[in-house]
Amino acid sequence: MTYFDNFLKANQAYVGLHGDLHLPIKPKTKVAIVTCMDSRLHVAPALGLALGDAHILRNAGGRVTEDMIRSLVISQQQMGTREIVVLHHTDCGAQTFENEPFRQYLKKELGVDVGDRDFLPFQDVEESVREDMEILKASPLIPEDVKISGAVYDVNTGLISEVK
Amino acid sequence: MTYFDNFLKANQAYVGLHGDLHLPIKPKTKVAIVTCMDSRLHVAPALGLALGDAHILRNAGGRVTEDMIRSLVISQQQMGTREIVVLHHTDCGAQTFENEPFRQYLKKELGVDVGDRDFLPFQDVEESVREDMEILKASPLIPEDVKISGAVYDVNTGLISEVK
Repeated sequence: MTYFDNFLKANQAYVGLHGDLHLPIKPKTKVAIVTCMDSRLHVAPALGLALGDAHILRNAGGRVTEDMIRSLVISQQQMGTREIVVLHHTDCGAQTFENEPFRQYLKKELGVDVGDRDFLPFQDVEESVREDMEILKASPLIPEDVKISGAVYDVNTGLISEVK
Repeated sequence: MTYFDNFLKANQAYVGLHGDLHLPIKPKTKVAIVTCMDSRLHVAPALGLALGDAHILRNAGGRVTEDMIRSLVISQQQMGTREIVVLHHTDCGAQTFENEPFRQYLKKELGVDVGDRDFLPFQDVEESVREDMEILKASPLIPEDVKISGAVYDVNTGLISEVK
């Protein structure tokens, strides 16, 4: 028994409410949200997004990696988005470890030597938002006129606060 | 004026409904969902997820990249997840282009030579799910006993169908 089976059952009820929609493939707001995989953040209700409104990109920490840039280039050049919101959050898993001890743990636990691989942990959540906004601004693959905002989500209250 | 300002306003209403929760940092179901950034997929309602239930990882196509593996390793080794669902969808943006013409377009449009960079487009959505499940199964960083399922979400109906 997997949770996947439960998800398929829950999905049956969702289909009944969904109806036969034919929304455009291009997001209505032209926004891409870059955020964390954390289970306590449900992006659509937290930001008031309807189906079809915005691209939602999520990895561990909501960090701007090479793969995030790949996704944003497709989002912008193929799907017409023109704005990015970097949204990190309080009590993040990326704040629970540091690279070197984590690498040693993986070697011991999984028998894998990951070399100097960076798992992108951080200490200060506002600082990590600013860092990732800077990476976006510096990237030649992100056009100058794309609007970039940053914010922190509070997992206890649901409040989003802008980071300048 | 940015859409971000609208999101902050919508978030005020969300905070009123959220209340002061203190959910655990570790996802309740021990599941990580790997899926696409597409705006027509709201993962939590489509799978019946409550706040705190599962990690949600999203990039262009829902592809299993190096960054996705980074995130899954953190999800599993730091946050205790033990199951992965690879969820791609119909009418995907990753089906709207091919690598070489896209690279040429980026050179012309942005003046950037991306070399042989792979943007991970695909043609057949069931095949892309199977490919990504295989990458997970072959990765030494994903333990053998982690359960891996695959599925396709229909953006018109909301229906999720398993891929074997």
